[in-house]
Amino acid sequence: MKMESLHDLMLDVMKDTYDAEHQITQALPQMAQAATSADLKKAFEQHLRQTEKQIEQLEQAFEMIGQRPSRKQCVAMKGLIKEGQELIEEGGDKETLDAGLIAAAQKVEHYEIAAYGTLRTWAQQLGMNDAAEIFDRIAQEEGTTDQKLTKLAEGKINQRAQ
Amino acid sequence: MKMESLHDLMLDVMKDTYDAEHQITQALPQMAQAATSADLKKAFEQHLRQTEKQIEQLEQAFEMIGQRPSRKQCVAMKGLIKEGQELIEEGGDKETLDAGLIAAAQKVEHYEIAAYGTLRTWAQQLGMNDAAEIFDRIAQEEGTTDQKLTKLAEGKINQRAQ
Repeated sequence: MKMESLHDLMLDVMKDTYDAEHQITQALPQMAQAATSADLKKAFEQHLRQTEKQIEQLEQAFEMIGQRPSRKQCVAMKGLIKEGQELIEEGGDKETLDAGLIAAAQKVEHYEIAAYGTLRTWAQQLGMNDAAEIFDRIAQEEGTTDQKLTKLAEGKINQRAQ
Repeated sequence: MKMESLHDLMLDVMKDTYDAEHQITQALPQMAQAATSADLKKAFEQHLRQTEKQIEQLEQAFEMIGQRPSRKQCVAMKGLIKEGQELIEEGGDKETLDAGLIAAAQKVEHYEIAAYGTLRTWAQQLGMNDAAEIFDRIAQEEGTTDQKLTKLAEGKINQRAQ
């Protein structure tokens, strides 16, 4: 599809992000299962529920701009998730795996921080303030999740992995 | 390769990131060529030179921990770069493409911010302070590049794309 306007581009990134979030809901249960630390398991489970809500909010944003929610395969998220899956498949020390899972999850969070930050700016530029608010809220939630993962890693998990 | 310690994991992420940086040096000239805005072209060209220096710094970090620099295919970066390439191939409005290229580049920056942030924390945990300093410096450079791209987008490029 050719991008002829910022509106086209925003819709394209929304479809990509909508697909990315669905991929994440598939990956998080595997990551929670593979995690050894109870705190990390819980963090992945909580983020799964948050991601499900973000999908609903994204659906609202599609409606706000008069579009039906649809997915466009997000190849970047496929690669990001594969990194975490490879770690799980490789096996090795369980506490080292926890540190690796956090690193993989933080890369996923940063993808989303960049995506929603861009969507927020574009929606504002296009005067779509309701959609911009949704993107802003989700961007902030992803930022908070990223900080929570940093705290978990620095608190106990990196030390145990050492 | 099985990850048996935080050291194994750090080395693995260093190899992944070293490969990612090489992929970026291949992608940036295409992105600079595809950009219409002179400022954006210049930003991509400057970031290419910065990335080449970061590769040298990463090589120093490998030496500091007694390892030879080597690459492990970074599937995530392959996907991230593909997003930008698809935009270029799809064609469409040139000024819209500029906005899309910035969005793609910011996702790449965020991948690196997450990667170097993790590497810095792990190197500190392992008492490898010289390597930690290098990772910290690069993480900050990537953060500055990301902010520069935001300013470019908000300054003129999104407006032209609209």
